[in-house]
Amino acid sequence: MGHSVSDDPEATGMDIETHHSQRHADNIPPVHKVRLPPRQNLVKEIAARAKETFFSDDPFRPFKDQTKSRKLLLGAQALFPILEWGRHYNLKKLKGDVISGLTIASLCIPQDIGYAKLANLPPQYGLYSSFVPPLVYAFMGSSRDIAIGPVAVVSLLLGTLLQGEIDSVTHPQEYLRLAFTATFFAGVTQAALGFLRLGFLIDFLSHAAIVGFMGGAAITIALQQLKGFLGIKHFTKKTDIISVMQSVWGTVNDEWNWQTILIGAVFLAFLLFAKYIGKKKKKLFWVAAIAPLISVVVSTFFVYITRADKHGVQIVKHIKKGINPPSVDQIYFSGDFLGKGIRIGVVAGMIALTEAAAIGRTFAAMKDYHLDGNKEMVALGVMNIAGSMTSCYVATGSFSRSAVNYMAGCQTAVSNIVMSGVVFLTLELITPLFKYTPNAILSSIIISAVIGLIDYEAALLIWKIDKFDFVACMGAFFGVVFASVEIGLLIAVSISFAKILLQVTRPRTALLGNLPHTSIYRNIEQYPDARKVPGVLVVRVDSAIYFSNCNYVRERILRWLEDEEEQLKVEGQARIQYLIVEMSPVTDIDTGGIHALEELFKSLQKREIQLVFANPGQVVIDKLYASKLVDLIGQDWIFLTVADAVKTCSPKAAGSLPEV
Amino acid sequence: MGHSVSDDPEATGMDIETHHSQRHADNIPPVHKVRLPPRQNLVKEIAARAKETFFSDDPFRPFKDQTKSRKLLLGAQALFPILEWGRHYNLKKLKGDVISGLTIASLCIPQDIGYAKLANLPPQYGLYSSFVPPLVYAFMGSSRDIAIGPVAVVSLLLGTLLQGEIDSVTHPQEYLRLAFTATFFAGVTQAALGFLRLGFLIDFLSHAAIVGFMGGAAITIALQQLKGFLGIKHFTKKTDIISVMQSVWGTVNDEWNWQTILIGAVFLAFLLFAKYIGKKKKKLFWVAAIAPLISVVVSTFFVYITRADKHGVQIVKHIKKGINPPSVDQIYFSGDFLGKGIRIGVVAGMIALTEAAAIGRTFAAMKDYHLDGNKEMVALGVMNIAGSMTSCYVATGSFSRSAVNYMAGCQTAVSNIVMSGVVFLTLELITPLFKYTPNAILSSIIISAVIGLIDYEAALLIWKIDKFDFVACMGAFFGVVFASVEIGLLIAVSISFAKILLQVTRPRTALLGNLPHTSIYRNIEQYPDARKVPGVLVVRVDSAIYFSNCNYVRERILRWLEDEEEQLKVEGQARIQYLIVEMSPVTDIDTGGIHALEELFKSLQKREIQLVFANPGQVVIDKLYASKLVDLIGQDWIFLTVADAVKTCSPKAAGSLPEV
Repeated sequence: MGHSVSDDPEATGMDIETHHSQRHADNIPPVHKVRLPPRQNLVKEIAARAKETFFSDDPFRPFKDQTKSRKLLLGAQALFPILEWGRHYNLKKLKGDVISGLTIASLCIPQDIGYAKLANLPPQYGLYSSFVPPLVYAFMGSSRDIAIGPVAVVSLLLGTLLQGEIDSVTHPQEYLRLAFTATFFAGVTQAALGFLRLGFLIDFLSHAAIVGFMGGAAITIALQQLKGFLGIKHFTKKTDIISVMQSVWGTVNDEWNWQTILIGAVFLAFLLFAKYIGKKKKKLFWVAAIAPLISVVVSTFFVYITRADKHGVQIVKHIKKGINPPSVDQIYFSGDFLGKGIRIGVVAGMIALTEAAAIGRTFAAMKDYHLDGNKEMVALGVMNIAGSMTSCYVATGSFSRSAVNYMAGCQTAVSNIVMSGVVFLTLELITPLFKYTPNAILSSIIISAVIGLIDYEAALLIWKIDKFDFVACMGAFFGVVFASVEIGLLIAVSISFAKILLQVTRPRTALLGNLPHTSIYRNIEQYPDARKVPGVLVVRVDSAIYFSNCNYVRERILRWLEDEEEQLKVEGQARIQYLIVEMSPVTDIDTGGIHALEELFKSLQKREIQLVFANPGQVVIDKLYASKLVDLIGQDWIFLTVADAVKTCSPKAAGSLPEV
Repeated sequence: MGHSVSDDPEATGMDIETHHSQRHADNIPPVHKVRLPPRQNLVKEIAARAKETFFSDDPFRPFKDQTKSRKLLLGAQALFPILEWGRHYNLKKLKGDVISGLTIASLCIPQDIGYAKLANLPPQYGLYSSFVPPLVYAFMGSSRDIAIGPVAVVSLLLGTLLQGEIDSVTHPQEYLRLAFTATFFAGVTQAALGFLRLGFLIDFLSHAAIVGFMGGAAITIALQQLKGFLGIKHFTKKTDIISVMQSVWGTVNDEWNWQTILIGAVFLAFLLFAKYIGKKKKKLFWVAAIAPLISVVVSTFFVYITRADKHGVQIVKHIKKGINPPSVDQIYFSGDFLGKGIRIGVVAGMIALTEAAAIGRTFAAMKDYHLDGNKEMVALGVMNIAGSMTSCYVATGSFSRSAVNYMAGCQTAVSNIVMSGVVFLTLELITPLFKYTPNAILSSIIISAVIGLIDYEAALLIWKIDKFDFVACMGAFFGVVFASVEIGLLIAVSISFAKILLQVTRPRTALLGNLPHTSIYRNIEQYPDARKVPGVLVVRVDSAIYFSNCNYVRERILRWLEDEEEQLKVEGQARIQYLIVEMSPVTDIDTGGIHALEELFKSLQKREIQLVFANPGQVVIDKLYASKLVDLIGQDWIFLTVADAVKTCSPKAAGSLPEV
């Protein structure tokens, strides 16, 4: 309050004033005016906007000014990045890729078998999905670190959604066909999103929502493993924690099998210990990576020699030998199941995309190479379409395997080819050896794998940074755990949207004050030493002014004014004569906003207060002119900075301030 | 490009420098630091946010520090504003209210009869709805100018929705009951929105969408009137332009009645002429206001003496005499129709609210009095609940009648009481006189009334200001005209939402340059004389950074950098060493945004470029600290202004610039 430069030596002010006049004498304009941007024509404007929305990465830039044959080559390279990076491939890179490929293969084989069970599919389908999709991806994808295959969350989601339509036990054939149909349309969805440059749609699932969703899915998956881990035969088909717990405790006397539990517990302890070692010493990451395969080998051998399966320890029993049979004729292209397949495919495809995009982005940022999101989607889409025709279900990038891939020193997507090769050999040669693998081991492997998805540190950070995000995170988490994967997903998306809308509806506003000895105006809440200018109220609106918030903004500004006037009356100070709206953060305005400003102007006019705008941006000034609001308010009341505005409104207060 | 002060006299720079040192000597800190706002505790923060969202108008402020009895009085006054303004009521105000009340009554009686037909209801229900609701509103509402009663758009909407569920011709009784049920739940919806302080939800229908929707509805309503205007007996039940036109042209030889057309056309010409006069000379507005009643009287008399009804001119025939019968027992509180009634009621209630809110706001701004949106909703809700129990259908504020009310000099809601009184007398005494009123006259009256809803000037202005808004406007318009009222509404809401989301997904970014002879940095596109600082790239992000745009923002900033570096390489200039992100418009950031900035920092680190932030706001700096991102980037790299940052990054360039 009060005169804002009371403790500023008068000399300083004078000095500046002198300087100001001197500048004037040099014929340099002292005050810059808000400039109208150069007029663009409409088509150009819309084209620029559309380009920024859909082609923000300017994918056609390399094609400019090239010969036809060169364009063809570039086009082929764009579709198959392997043509580009393959030319620089060398033995050193191959070494890294082979080592990492073998490592992720050892990790993926036992995981695949378990994940297939999550999707209510026979075990070989998990292996099929680790054979064809990684091959396709290696040719079309541009991430160097992602490891492709079936993943826990998508398997669970797909299993839940499919089971909701058709029972996997009574109708295994139809169930399988629906799974292929869903996979086909998941691929179509992914490829279409990429091709139509709509990749940004997956950004609408916020980071916080993903953290919560993944954590909830991990808990749900781990709970599902209690079936295999405890040896229960009659288990609920539902996934919520209450149903599962009822299943578990209801069978404690009848079905729990101590031999199963013992095997499972021992190997779970081993796996967790290996994981701990891998985390403690980054160099020993391979211990954690090969522990699952070791567990499978040891436990299978153990069951084989003790014939524990005769004592109630459930085993895998049978995995079909040989590589993927074709399944084009299995996909439903008509009938009732077509619609269901599309619906399930779209949901599963989007979630798979979200996971792959998050992984791709993370590793691209770590190694600082560029990843074209839309191109990635096309690659993933084509991969799943090809998969659906070769008996695979939805594959995507796996968090855990990609991390191992990265740490094992992968250089290019060739590591996926190596892994695919190992899976091929497994399918052709050694599937019969899995006969005696106990289900409890697969459960232990899945439990130890999904535990990594529970990112409580991220949740804690979210709590610290943004409470609303935390609500979204917890909403997704509890939605998945207590209801179902779909409900959790729905909650996550709804809260994310609600947040955007809420922020757009109730933007922040702030009273600004002058920072002593400067011509800078800042929020007086953030800078308590900022001082108000007598007779002038400076308000900043912290958002674009749209139909959804324009009435709020108008009312809020008037409320700032009324509060201030009340206080001034109590203090017996001079009344407000100018209301300066600092528009720097107002990035856009629509017709509703223009109307609100017009109404604000009229309300102020009735109170004999002049409305003043400071620093309206390019878009805003354009619209102020287009709507003739400038003529109403007066061109002279629009300033480049708050300081300029104050100088005109309250020369006495501003005169002794330093020059801008 | 180049040194940014090349044409600035060296002396000026020197002068400033001297001044700077002098200030320093006076022991005044030359550079302000970005301040962390005072820490709030969590509960307070959430409470403040919730208050701003739901109680932004601080409705309990007058209740503070009052005695109990005073609080009770204030509470009663809040619920029944008539208790407050009634105390200052005087004869002068009464005169204005009586005149305006009589004027709007003369306008509403013929309109009501016609609007009831739009809702497929017998004519007396229109009059009923102009009797009870205005009375209730007068006691509870706070707008002084709104004229309450049935309106064209809501009548059409209600008619379409109800007809979709049940046929009004074959099941008139059930149709009527469903109408009361919908009205009841429309009232409940309105009251609940107000009571739960969710009034801001209606802001999501943008101004542009409303203009388009209203225009489309006006065309649709006018087309519906062709039935009465041309004397057609077999008319389509659909409302889209194609079905209606088929109905019209299909009957041109059989059903068109020249006598009807003649009467309708003559009086339509008279009404439009009266409207034109009223528009030309504001003082003669009453000519337009009483023209409908005169038309009804004259035409009824004419038909009565010529017995034109025997020549195929359709007449009203019968309006039930007497005031509203009770209808509480007619409302469906169970069964199939309950759900349908709720659905229809919610939609109709929201649209009625939108119209009333727009009218209330417009006139409150014109007379500069305050209107509590949420309280208004409660009043409108209670009014419709009361209406549904007394044989009324959904009433709200009418655009045309409110304007007439205002121009006739209404002072308070007493004008609604006067109007209600006139309608009461009409119902009790003179309904039989309407027997010979030709339907064509009612059609002419409605056509001339709804023409005012086609606001092509507003549409033109929208086109000028915001092309995207125009698309929403046209989408709503064509949706209503070519499909149905519901489809139009759906299109309008969807486009409005899509706009918000698009803006949040693809925010604008800008390169900043230094305005010569100042320390101001502005968009170089808007200010072509702004000059870049060598070695420094200044980028402004024009939006809060959320999960939905954080990846785009990060990539866009890197693209600015790459483009710039390419250009610098061509020109052989020094490479970029500092990237300053101007954060003034970044009003908020979430965990996704923090991660994106972290990734940006890492990418820049690899290229040996320092990331610098300028002027992060209160919320942003808070989160930068909470996430420890500040420690990563370095506290010293966060500045209060771009000028401060440039001064540190490029002292040579900034040294010769004027002091901040």
